Amino acid sequence: MMDNANAGRGRELLAVLEDLGGGGAFADQIFSLVGRSQFFAEFNRDDVNLLGGYMRVYHAEPGQTIIREGDIGDYMLLVIRGEVDIYKQNLMGEKQLMTSVIQGMTLGEMSMIDGEPRFATCVALKETTFGVLTRDDMVKIILEKPSLGSKILIKLVTMLSQRLRHTSATLLQYMSNP
Amino acid sequence: MMDNANAGRGRELLAVLEDLGGGGAFADQIFSLVGRSQFFAEFNRDDVNLLGGYMRVYHAEPGQTIIREGDIGDYMLLVIRGEVDIYKQNLMGEKQLMTSVIQGMTLGEMSMIDGEPRFATCVALKETTFGVLTRDDMVKIILEKPSLGSKILIKLVTMLSQRLRHTSATLLQYMSNP
Repeated sequence: MMDNANAGRGRELLAVLEDLGGGGAFADQIFSLVGRSQFFAEFNRDDVNLLGGYMRVYHAEPGQTIIREGDIGDYMLLVIRGEVDIYKQNLMGEKQLMTSVIQGMTLGEMSMIDGEPRFATCVALKETTFGVLTRDDMVKIILEKPSLGSKILIKLVTMLSQRLRHTSATLLQYMSNP
Repeated sequence: MMDNANAGRGRELLAVLEDLGGGGAFADQIFSLVGRSQFFAEFNRDDVNLLGGYMRVYHAEPGQTIIREGDIGDYMLLVIRGEVDIYKQNLMGEKQLMTSVIQGMTLGEMSMIDGEPRFATCVALKETTFGVLTRDDMVKIILEKPSLGSKILIKLVTMLSQRLRHTSATLLQYMSNP
């Protein structure tokens, strides 16, 4: 069903952050962030309570690195409170600020999904609280709670699709104006 | 569960193509194309037989337009045989060839997912056979066959994720070399 070889690897950065425990206690906040989806699926309160039970919540101080480009990693983050800067090394090896991510947005889902190395570095800009969902958790949800699993996957698909539209449109602008 | 307002719209282009009927008769070819997935999920033969039952298969002659940029559309395509060119209008209104897509690859999944207008135009380069999966079909699969639904969603998530990595890396090259 999945490649477990790297499970657990790449969680060293989490280990130095403050562990706030299971996500159940954060269900209210998570619900207010992910409750509504534009198409297909909506998360109801039961879904979010279930999802919280699979997540673990952490806290990062400003300046703490949450994800490092090139690392192996098998989890995604949901920012519950705070703000995270996304940096990427350019071809000259310089760290470039790509974008910032605030509450309700997710990070790191590409590696959670495809197991490839982290594409960018994520650093807390403010005091940041975030939920962690690992690939193992995701597989468990799909098997144990297929309806919730579908809703999360639909959410991911929608989000990646919109991000791809945005990135492709930006790339086209660069390609059109050499 | 979903926004049905546009269901059926945007299928005018399909209406002029040769309709080869349900996808069940193409299960062998579909299986050879989508059977194996790198992570999470694999499609077994039963899955593909089921999936074929939800798809409709069409044939396009070289030069026929399958999807038109800016149109409303609620279906995705799986290229079973042939080759499709993807064009996008640039800021000067010129049609630019973005990429080509061959058998086993999918097209149009962003609009199937998020309901936004088509991002690009798809034109058959060769004799092309493709399966069509509408948003209605996808919702039905998720409700009626949740395990198959999850596998399709995982496939979509993986593919979008890899496409986003690729597009982002290309964009970064443009941004680094002005």
